[in-house]
Formats: sequence, C-alpha cells, structure tokens
Amino acid sequence: MNTSALNIVFHGHNAAIFRQGFESLIGPGHQILALSEALDQAGERRQYENADVVIGIRLDETLPRPLKARLFHAPAAGTDAIQTALLPPQCTLANCFGHEQAIAEYVIAALLLRHVPLAQADQDLRQQRWTYWAGHRAALRTEMGAQTLGLLGFGHIGQAIAERAKAFGMRVHVANRSPVVHPGVDQSWTLDGLQPFMASADAVVVSLPLTDGTRGLVNAQALAAMRAGALLLNVGRGAVVDEKALYEALASRQLGGAVIDTWYQYPSAGQSGCAPSQYDFAALDHVVMTPHMSGWTEGTVRRRQATLADNIRRLGTGAPLINVLRSPV
Amino acid sequence: MNTSALNIVFHGHNAAIFRQGFESLIGPGHQILALSEALDQAGERRQYENADVVIGIRLDETLPRPLKARLFHAPAAGTDAIQTALLPPQCTLANCFGHEQAIAEYVIAALLLRHVPLAQADQDLRQQRWTYWAGHRAALRTEMGAQTLGLLGFGHIGQAIAERAKAFGMRVHVANRSPVVHPGVDQSWTLDGLQPFMASADAVVVSLPLTDGTRGLVNAQALAAMRAGALLLNVGRGAVVDEKALYEALASRQLGGAVIDTWYQYPSAGQSGCAPSQYDFAALDHVVMTPHMSGWTEGTVRRRQATLADNIRRLGTGAPLINVLRSPV
Repeated sequence: MNTSALNIVFHGHNAAIFRQGFESLIGPGHQILALSEALDQAGERRQYENADVVIGIRLDETLPRPLKARLFHAPAAGTDAIQTALLPPQCTLANCFGHEQAIAEYVIAALLLRHVPLAQADQDLRQQRWTYWAGHRAALRTEMGAQTLGLLGFGHIGQAIAERAKAFGMRVHVANRSPVVHPGVDQSWTLDGLQPFMASADAVVVSLPLTDGTRGLVNAQALAAMRAGALLLNVGRGAVVDEKALYEALASRQLGGAVIDTWYQYPSAGQSGCAPSQYDFAALDHVVMTPHMSGWTEGTVRRRQATLADNIRRLGTGAPLINVLRSPV
Repeated sequence: MNTSALNIVFHGHNAAIFRQGFESLIGPGHQILALSEALDQAGERRQYENADVVIGIRLDETLPRPLKARLFHAPAAGTDAIQTALLPPQCTLANCFGHEQAIAEYVIAALLLRHVPLAQADQDLRQQRWTYWAGHRAALRTEMGAQTLGLLGFGHIGQAIAERAKAFGMRVHVANRSPVVHPGVDQSWTLDGLQPFMASADAVVVSLPLTDGTRGLVNAQALAAMRAGALLLNVGRGAVVDEKALYEALASRQLGGAVIDTWYQYPSAGQSGCAPSQYDFAALDHVVMTPHMSGWTEGTVRRRQATLADNIRRLGTGAPLINVLRSPV
C-alpha cells in the first residue's frame, strides 16, 4: 500500500479510547497524537489546526478550526455536536457504527427483565421463599416472544434489534423516515403513520438520530396513542422524545414504564454528575434510568477502530471513503 | 369427530392450572374433574381409579393405582416423579414440552445480565452518578455475542436457546447423549467428550433430564475443566450437577458464577418453603438462585394444554399418540 504520512489527532477523552493500539491497525509512518479535550497543553492548538485527520465527537466555536483537515471522523454515530459549518471546504465528515450489537443486547436485556423477575426471585429464594415456583397460578409470567415490538427508526440499531427479537418469536413493527421492506419486519409505516404505529406495539424502541425533523417527534399525542401498559425505550437521542410529555405520561401511569438511556441534560466538562432531566424521573419506580451507556462495549470500540483505520487507509490511497455524512464542498 | 366419552382427571395443584378452559379445547361430552393432591375429598380415590385419562406429574405408592387409565399424561416434560411400574399394562405415558420458549427467555435474560449492568446503572443515575457513561474506559462492558455458549443437552430447550443465542452472534457448542448435527451448532460432542466440551465455553447451560445416566454427570472433574470465570446455568434437573462439587467450585471461586433454577431440595406438600440445598448457596454473591421457575409462563400453559387436548382427541379417535414415553405393554 502506497500511502503518504498523515497527521492524525484523537481529540478529547472519548476519542482517546480509540487511540489505543491504533498504530497496529493503520501501519507505520503516520504521526498519531492524543489531544486533551480543552486543547490547553503546549502545542495542542497548533497540532489540531495542522491535522490531516481529526477524530472527535465535537466541533464548535470554543475550538480552533481544523483548517488542514481532509477528514473529520466521529468515532460515534451521532454527529449533532459537530458544527459542519466550521469544517474547511476540502474536509469529509464521516461517522462510525458498530454499536448496534451492543445496543441490541441492552434493549433485549431490558425487555426480558419485564418478563423474567430474576432479581426478585433470587432475593426471595435466599430467604427460602419459593415465590415464583412453577405450578402455581400466581407465579405464571408473560413471554417477551408473545409481544409486538415497535422500532421507531430502522437503521443499524433497529435492524440489529429486529434480528434478535425475531429469534424470540416477537412480532416486529417499524416506523421509519424512509419506507422499509425487510424479511424481519411484519408491518411498517413511514413517519406520517406515527400514531397507528405507536398504537400497534407492546414496547416501542426509539433509535432515531436527532435532526430538525425528529426533534420532539414523540410528543404527547404520540405517547397517548400507545397501548395501556406499554413500554417506551429511548436509545437514540433524548430530545427525539418530548421531555415534558414523557415525564407526564409516566407520572400519570398512562405508560407502563420506560427505559431511558439518552437524556436531556448531561454533565458538562469537569462536572462529575447532574440530573439527566429537569423533571424528577428518579421519583418514578417504573423507569429504568441509564447514563447513555447502551452502545458502549469493547466490541463497539474494536469495530469502530476498524472503521476509522479503514477510512484513513482509503484517504491515504485515494479510495472512496465510507460512512460519509458530508463530502468536500 | 366420533369420540367416546372419557373420564379425565387433573390430579393435584400443578395439573389444576391446566384444567382451566379445557372443555373448549376438547369439546363437549367428556367428564372432567380436578382432584386434590392428597385425593382426600369424598369420592376422589374412586374417581382417580376409574379415570380413562390421568393428568398429573406424580405417581407413587401413596396414591391409588389408576387401574383403568389408558393415558397418563404429565403436563410437564420431566416424569421422574412418575413410577412407571405402577401404571396398568394398557396405559400410555406421555409428556409435554412447550416450555422451551420460556426457558430460553430465562436463560438469555440471565446471560445478558452478566454483560449489561442495568440495575446498578439505574441505581447510580438516580443519584446523579453517571458511572457507566459511554466514552469512559472503565465503563466499557463485554458483549454476550462475543462469547461461546455451551449447551449440555440438545432437546427442545437446547435448540430454543441455540436459535436465540445465534441471533446475538454467539458461538454455540453442544454436548448431547446422541450426536448432534444442526445448522445452529458450531461444534458438538457426545457425553464421552464432556471434559473438552466443558472447557470450550464461557457459559454452560445444563438442560439434561435426570436419568441413571445423567445423575451427577457434572461432577467435580467436569466443573474443574471449565474456563476460569465461566458461568454454569442449570435449568434441567438439580441432581445432574453434583451438589457438593458445585458448591465447592463456587465457594472457591473456581467458577465465575452460577444461575441455578433446578435444585436438590424442594418444599414438601404443605410446607411453605425450605432451603434448596444442604449447602449454603445463599451465602454466595455470584449465584442467581431461582425456585424452578424458568419454564413457567402463560405461553407454556397454553402450549401444553394444546398438547394434552391433542393427545386426548387422538385417544378418542384411535390415532397414534404423540410425546409417548411408554407404550402399552
């Protein structure tokens, strides 16, 4: 492979995770630097400005402009924190997937726990109480496989969830921006059919990205269309689901529960924690609250490193890049 | 359908669950009775002795002999509590499955929880601690899909687990009494290859029935062959795994953990609870202890009722029965 030497910077603590072992993936001859989030160490601003490739999840007015960059690569799927207007004209913007296997494991785990009371059964049997013993009518549980799963969004994540849900025998419904025809999907709608879609499932998983068209899409009306006792899961972006409407649908017990991984408020740099919403979701016992973790596995890092390395090799050899969100202008 | 009227008895509290709505499944014209566990109500012993069909999970010396029975049908898979020597010569013994979907949900739920720390993440975020937030190296989790699952036993249960495990991308290994060739199985052994099989997986699920050939099969030597940190799950019968050897392999942390649903001691009739073993498994924090619940769902009852009704229709019309364990002698 005949490639020119590239200056590659990994910017910030998130990107730093993908730095480890990266030489072995792209081969020798490149300069690879891991830069701090604030670029406040000696020489870091200049190194950022001179980079051929920036790997990072954020680009805003607080940062210098990556004037020489030919590739700005998010080591993540979501690029809503990257202001594309700040990219130089010759620069391609690309993203990574490879998180869909991890997110599907998170979603199926959360769904199964609605049916299989492992923690309570364990706690009881440790005290010699055989609460869920087979043969007793009160111990009969429901089956996930008998239910209908609604997937709002059918990109990599939705497809990975559908494959697994099908293996359990679930009926799979989809609502997506573009029409979906897929062997694992029993019925589908486009987003103008959101209401009947929401009404058709026992659990709805939101995996849409945040765009002008999806912000607040799941509003009070959409939530009100859901079945009594139904479950909402959000692994896409918090703001796709209207914050106030979600809290009220849960507080009023109109919804049967929620599993929320993507939120409305995040700790800012240097802050150790914060409440994830202006509403008190922590007061609700039928919500599972997790800190934007669903896609974060060793496998995700490994698969995204492979994508980053692949695109850097392509850049070096002049081959077309993959996962392109914005081409040079 | 031209069938003769049958006297059908559901014996005991377990069978009583399957009594509900049974007329609608087999049609009119039959006498259907639900008898108490002890047969101590007026006329019950005679009704039991006169039954054409007995539905129950137990037959031993404490009960009258079902002298007229042409079909003794367990509404369960395991028939180790039915003494076949006490059946009259004309009587067929049959069992039911239909629990495999439920058990597979239990198993995959327990496996996923080893990888997705939902309860801990939820507890932390309720206190505004973002412990598992993506982007932090310490928060990276493992993936179930990257692991190898060992299935000791490949009947209905093993096959249902394999189908689901494959959808997650797991590698599936099997050890079975008869050789297995199956598209969902990557490698298989017969039981004389138990040691290499046990050593080949990150988690081993025992679903073998209890027979003279399987009692104590998973002994100290088999457990010692398992990978460091590996998980043992038992959803078959307790005594297939040597009680003392299992406790010691866990107490010494030679095993990474266990999920135990089938046990060594059960509450006797009228007893509300008891310890499930002579050893103190409740003192171990890397064990999930559940009270023989894995197969017990509404779906299991519905599917088993369909099997019971099917066999009773076959008996009435002279068609060959299904799920036969012992034919008339």
